[in-house]
Amino acid sequence: MKFVYSFDEGNKSMKLLLGGKGANLAEMTSIGLPIPPGFTITTEACAYYSENNKFLDGMMKEVDEHLAKLEKRMNLKLGDHSDPLLVSVRSGAAASMPGMMDTVLNLGLNDKSVEGLAKKTNNQRFAYDSYRRFIQMFSDVVLDVDITNFEDALEKAKQTKGVENDTGLDAEDLKKLVAVYKNIVKEKLNEEFPQEPKEQLRLAIIAVFGSWNNDRAKAYRRINNITGLKGTAVNIQSMVFGNMGDDSGTGVCFTRNPSTGENKFYGEYLMNAQGEDVVAGIRTPQSIEKLEKNDSNAYKQLCEIRLKLEKHFRDMQDIEFTIQKGNLFILQTRDGKRTSKASVKIAVDMIKEGLITEKEGILRVNPNHIDQLLHKQLDPLGKQKAKVLATGLPASPGAGVGRIVFNAEDAKKFSEKGQKIILCRTETSPEDIEGMNVAVGILTSRGGMTSHAAVVARGMGKCCVAGCGDAKINEHAKTLTIADKIFKEMDWITLDGNTGEVFGGMIPTIDPEISGEFALFMSWADKYRKLGVRTNADTPYDAKKAREFGAEGIGLCRTEHMFFEGERILAVREMILANTKQEREKALAKILPMQKQDFIGIFRAMEGLPVTIRLLDPPLHEFLPKEEKDIIEIAKDMNIDITRLKQKIEDLHEQNPMLGHRGCRLIITYPEITEMQTRAIIEAAIEVSKEQKDGKFLKVIPEIMIPLVGSVNELTILKKEIKRISDERIKKSNIKLEYKIGTMIEVPRACLIADKIAEEAEFFSFGTNDLTQMAFGFSRDDIAKFLPEYLAKNILPRDPFQAIDQEGIGELIKMAVSKGREKKKDLKIGICGEHGGEPSSVEFCHRNGLNYVSCSPFRVPIARLAAAQAAVREIKTN
Amino acid sequence: MKFVYSFDEGNKSMKLLLGGKGANLAEMTSIGLPIPPGFTITTEACAYYSENNKFLDGMMKEVDEHLAKLEKRMNLKLGDHSDPLLVSVRSGAAASMPGMMDTVLNLGLNDKSVEGLAKKTNNQRFAYDSYRRFIQMFSDVVLDVDITNFEDALEKAKQTKGVENDTGLDAEDLKKLVAVYKNIVKEKLNEEFPQEPKEQLRLAIIAVFGSWNNDRAKAYRRINNITGLKGTAVNIQSMVFGNMGDDSGTGVCFTRNPSTGENKFYGEYLMNAQGEDVVAGIRTPQSIEKLEKNDSNAYKQLCEIRLKLEKHFRDMQDIEFTIQKGNLFILQTRDGKRTSKASVKIAVDMIKEGLITEKEGILRVNPNHIDQLLHKQLDPLGKQKAKVLATGLPASPGAGVGRIVFNAEDAKKFSEKGQKIILCRTETSPEDIEGMNVAVGILTSRGGMTSHAAVVARGMGKCCVAGCGDAKINEHAKTLTIADKIFKEMDWITLDGNTGEVFGGMIPTIDPEISGEFALFMSWADKYRKLGVRTNADTPYDAKKAREFGAEGIGLCRTEHMFFEGERILAVREMILANTKQEREKALAKILPMQKQDFIGIFRAMEGLPVTIRLLDPPLHEFLPKEEKDIIEIAKDMNIDITRLKQKIEDLHEQNPMLGHRGCRLIITYPEITEMQTRAIIEAAIEVSKEQKDGKFLKVIPEIMIPLVGSVNELTILKKEIKRISDERIKKSNIKLEYKIGTMIEVPRACLIADKIAEEAEFFSFGTNDLTQMAFGFSRDDIAKFLPEYLAKNILPRDPFQAIDQEGIGELIKMAVSKGREKKKDLKIGICGEHGGEPSSVEFCHRNGLNYVSCSPFRVPIARLAAAQAAVREIKTN
Repeated sequence: MKFVYSFDEGNKSMKLLLGGKGANLAEMTSIGLPIPPGFTITTEACAYYSENNKFLDGMMKEVDEHLAKLEKRMNLKLGDHSDPLLVSVRSGAAASMPGMMDTVLNLGLNDKSVEGLAKKTNNQRFAYDSYRRFIQMFSDVVLDVDITNFEDALEKAKQTKGVENDTGLDAEDLKKLVAVYKNIVKEKLNEEFPQEPKEQLRLAIIAVFGSWNNDRAKAYRRINNITGLKGTAVNIQSMVFGNMGDDSGTGVCFTRNPSTGENKFYGEYLMNAQGEDVVAGIRTPQSIEKLEKNDSNAYKQLCEIRLKLEKHFRDMQDIEFTIQKGNLFILQTRDGKRTSKASVKIAVDMIKEGLITEKEGILRVNPNHIDQLLHKQLDPLGKQKAKVLATGLPASPGAGVGRIVFNAEDAKKFSEKGQKIILCRTETSPEDIEGMNVAVGILTSRGGMTSHAAVVARGMGKCCVAGCGDAKINEHAKTLTIADKIFKEMDWITLDGNTGEVFGGMIPTIDPEISGEFALFMSWADKYRKLGVRTNADTPYDAKKAREFGAEGIGLCRTEHMFFEGERILAVREMILANTKQEREKALAKILPMQKQDFIGIFRAMEGLPVTIRLLDPPLHEFLPKEEKDIIEIAKDMNIDITRLKQKIEDLHEQNPMLGHRGCRLIITYPEITEMQTRAIIEAAIEVSKEQKDGKFLKVIPEIMIPLVGSVNELTILKKEIKRISDERIKKSNIKLEYKIGTMIEVPRACLIADKIAEEAEFFSFGTNDLTQMAFGFSRDDIAKFLPEYLAKNILPRDPFQAIDQEGIGELIKMAVSKGREKKKDLKIGICGEHGGEPSSVEFCHRNGLNYVSCSPFRVPIARLAAAQAAVREIKTN
Repeated sequence: MKFVYSFDEGNKSMKLLLGGKGANLAEMTSIGLPIPPGFTITTEACAYYSENNKFLDGMMKEVDEHLAKLEKRMNLKLGDHSDPLLVSVRSGAAASMPGMMDTVLNLGLNDKSVEGLAKKTNNQRFAYDSYRRFIQMFSDVVLDVDITNFEDALEKAKQTKGVENDTGLDAEDLKKLVAVYKNIVKEKLNEEFPQEPKEQLRLAIIAVFGSWNNDRAKAYRRINNITGLKGTAVNIQSMVFGNMGDDSGTGVCFTRNPSTGENKFYGEYLMNAQGEDVVAGIRTPQSIEKLEKNDSNAYKQLCEIRLKLEKHFRDMQDIEFTIQKGNLFILQTRDGKRTSKASVKIAVDMIKEGLITEKEGILRVNPNHIDQLLHKQLDPLGKQKAKVLATGLPASPGAGVGRIVFNAEDAKKFSEKGQKIILCRTETSPEDIEGMNVAVGILTSRGGMTSHAAVVARGMGKCCVAGCGDAKINEHAKTLTIADKIFKEMDWITLDGNTGEVFGGMIPTIDPEISGEFALFMSWADKYRKLGVRTNADTPYDAKKAREFGAEGIGLCRTEHMFFEGERILAVREMILANTKQEREKALAKILPMQKQDFIGIFRAMEGLPVTIRLLDPPLHEFLPKEEKDIIEIAKDMNIDITRLKQKIEDLHEQNPMLGHRGCRLIITYPEITEMQTRAIIEAAIEVSKEQKDGKFLKVIPEIMIPLVGSVNELTILKKEIKRISDERIKKSNIKLEYKIGTMIEVPRACLIADKIAEEAEFFSFGTNDLTQMAFGFSRDDIAKFLPEYLAKNILPRDPFQAIDQEGIGELIKMAVSKGREKKKDLKIGICGEHGGEPSSVEFCHRNGLNYVSCSPFRVPIARLAAAQAAVREIKTN
């Protein structure tokens, strides 16, 4: 086995082994770009080190051999007293993890070789500047001495001298600073700063290996779902110096604008500086075009390399370069990070330019980022100036700037007066819907990414920060306390739904720009997509919006949300409090015309497309008040005895409502609800079918969906009843109306007996939220108590309510698909849980032969792109 | 196809087709017993009628042909005016459903034929007695006229005449009564009583078919788990008459005593009567031995038949007979119902007599009935006199007679004063344990067969009636209201845990008698049993008791019950309220020695047998008070701020605690709990291992079980920790101690990834309660809201918390067994849910290769027998 590769041995296909940086350095070497020579220790060597806490046998021998070759080629020797070779030691994993792992520059310097460097370059200032940089970086990264010690010392030196920039320090100053630095190390560690260059190298390699498992690197991988990698490679490269004087410099550039995507060279540089100065912002860097004036030769060469690299790597590149005494060197190239807007524009441009194919272009845009294109954003400049007070979960993207209120009623009251409102609640419940609807943003202190607040806010396309534990919300006292800051009703705050950040006061926002390129890009994606994309929508407004976003039908229309609106909640409560079937039917008769009107609006909006309507799902107690104050008020409004209302609330109370009297269990025990809802659906469908547009009758495709089926008999009984009621009305109407009756698959047992259920059901729709709750035994409302620790300890790779758990829940889904289709070959199967808009889940649905996914309106484009990518990837792997 | 079988065409193996009665009548005909001739319409014909609401084509033609043959053989004609044939029309399904379905006697009588009968028998009284009986029965069963109308008329006739018994009415009286009866029919139905005998027959067949689906028959089948049958057969048999005078009579007898099992002829008869008179109790019947005096010939013949039938059918028989003018006829034989005590004695005796084999004998005792042999029972005579006030679920068998109290504290207080206590609670919680422990019975108004009250009571072998909705319990006012009766604290009530009945006042009880025959019987059962039987026990007392009942180890020791006792609950609360890990560890250090002491007691009691201990499972909020009053008191006791206690309770609150922060989730986030419990287990095991008995060291076999595992990493992390702590202590102790670390399989996802879990687990134990809750999405605490309707509508065949749902949950178990053994061929697998003591579930476990079941101590014998039966049945079918 071989653990070390010279740059002229590798190529760009070896990323898994050599890391992205190593593979690209080798590739650039092979195409003749000016790359300082060096070699790479493989990620496998890192993996071995991580597991065994020691180097692989023979690894250091290989390193020594490559170092010897490098010394020979450069005609220099590491740590030589008169003419030393200096090297950089850099991390570089297969996936880009910018800034997460460690790097050491200028390695090889010590008290002797620094003098050699000074003599040879005839530049004592440069030599000591390099040495003090080396001590600082090595001490920080390898020896674990707090970097602020060195920064303070540098600051003090500048003050003593009375200069503003480090360039104002001369050789003598730096010499003194080196002594101070060395003293810091000795004081902190009780040991001298290591002088032996090979020992420096060994320690640096260990530090870089070790940085693979530092906390921030692990967190980064978790957040970005980077899995399956072995470790980081280590690149050991001969140093070139941007800090050799004013004919030297260093910079970072992008082959296209990473912010807008514009096909224009973009970057920054600093003369007489090393790489970290550009990033650290010690001096203000110059825009790349200005380099032409500083060094027209190098600029010209860089422009040529820009084109060459983009053509070679066929993507926008992020390039690091150094000019050493007028000679240009490239230190790194990688695919450049970009904004969502830029990623779409670059993909479209490159396809048009013929640089990449449509299929490649489709894979270039991260579906998760599309979301940002559809929402108002905080002005990045404004954000930079503001202080983050607390961070919660980025539950629904966009910007929310408004005045805080603490309940739905106040939200309505103040919004009617024209105020912009942020609704702050410990957690929201269905009673808050109207308040959420009028708010510009929602902040909760409890609940996760799929809490009520999060789900509803995403459905509304409204900014939401959820589960922000540091925000103490007291709904009674009407205060929001973050750390020691207390906000009162009508105080301004700002939420960033993309990041979960909470700010005090107002931050300006910018409007999203949806250019024609985005539409073009999505049309290409749709060409390859096989999976249908529907939406979860409960109102004509949402349905219309989703249709604009490309939804091909409604996959889930939740009828219970309709129960909360306006006066109908009164009738709903009347029904719940009824003592007899007759009383219940009387109350339901009041709801019927309103519910019918809802469906008429939705059927019109979705004309020609299927509309899946789920019958009443939640337990009845959700429609009754919880707080003493509300109970008293409602009893008064309804003109009933408070004790009776309380008794009913007590009677309906459940220990575990998630596993309680809801879904089909409810409508089996209250068949009059089934009857009312079926009538509302079918009568609405009949009415809309009689309407005309452009001289043609409207087409209505209702699909009635029964929730929470776990035994086939539940479905059999309800289907028979629904068919009876529907067919009776259709027959009377004298029109032709086709409808389907199907079921949610959301109870684990339903997956186990899916073959039997398929005999009755005309379609399946996976309710992956409940399926995840029940098969894991997790309550999504309570999971915040242990999920963070489960993610931190890697017990779960991801929050299973965000992305389908393919190992477990996925197996249940596969089983249900296969058993269902075994009985009905062409059974239509969809998914309507929150996962329907999450890319890895969409890909899972594609691979397992589902017909469609359904998600909230604002996630429809995400699902479309994710589905297209899944199809393209499948073509590639086949 | 053939729908009608003459009695000489069938035999006893044709029960499914001819029903039990029909098949046995045919069998008896074939062995030459005196059976009145007749024929049987098949259950298939009934099934067709039930589905299509009309007779099978050709069925009535076959009936007519068989009737013609019968007339020819009897030399009589149905409805003949001078010498009529009369028939009985009786129901009879494959499974015995005594009294549930309909029967019509004396069919064929009308205004003309009654005269013929009178003339022919020269007995006008007999003829009119038969006619009035026929009109009453036919009107009741076939025409649906309320029977009380006829009973009232008969009563009036007796009063008018001034006689006490119907035998006091003469022919003229009866003639008049017939006229009155006919008038009643005409008045109620506006139609004459049907006179045409063939029409009478047709209507009677329809009525018998229809009675298969009457409410009480459906309920009986549901309660007795009778499934898979098609319908009832209809037996049409020529009548013989026990009411032809004093040389005639009728009776019912058992070949052995059905109450004690004694091998002695047992039965009752009445002279000059028809069958229903014996049952109806109009006159008091005579003991069968007295028949010898009435009719020594018939008695001798009957004694011979008794022996012949028992030998032929190889089981205790329940025989109906009629003597017509000195001639004995047998009308029915069937396997006799018997008490549990009798069933054991009869099986043992018959095996000893060589009548049946051991294997057959083992199958003769219903495991569910064994329970009765181990508990105090209500005196049946006392029960007969008392009035049932309400009926709840028979949650735990036995008799409970005591004074009511409404909370655990009062229960303790009064029981310390020597009072017998019935604890009445809306529902119980772990805080009630001590109160339940001192009570003689428990009554709850909520909760099902596996509610907390039910499970704990069964564990304690204590009578419990649960979920008695008609019993309104007001814990604050300390009243129990049933209908309009109000019971106060210290009033007496009586519970029957076998039936769920609740009585006011005291009913005497009788002690169970466990004879040596029971022990002998169980030893035979154990010979064939392959499945291990362990017990669920949390105390040394329970462990000992279960060992006496034959438990072969502990399958589930719940450590949380130990947390509630005495002063340790204070330390537990201290731990929960701790703000830091240090504070928590300090509180746990107080619990450690107490918990260790628990385990020492259990290990001693189970010396030589494995003891599976489950680490802490319930969510922490279960250990904190719920009621305001208790909160105030506890805050005072603990000397902490009430607000802080309330805040903690609020913080720990969960929407769905069943799916919340419990099981391994809890001990992963609080590793100090794991540490304390592991230490307590291992240190106790070490200590007991050093003890000696009879000069030998005690053997301790601890198995540490981790609850609620759904991801393999949960197990990996905890196992590593437990191993570290255990091995450290074992090493220090210098003794050899083997222990196992395994996991509950109770989360559906665990079944899906059982192969991965098996790589880490040293054993599996199915927690079928939670598995049922999660895979069905049923909360066992809330299911009472819809389960009764689900059972009534046949959506579910049984309560899945009582018997394993083999269709769904069973599939998950099979999957887990197969995936687990795929990875570890010899993986030890058990079940420790409540199902472990339910016979059909035990059989399921046997068939699917589990190693053991575990159940509450009092169910251990049930499980042993059920396991033996499963093994015997398997031998039979192989």
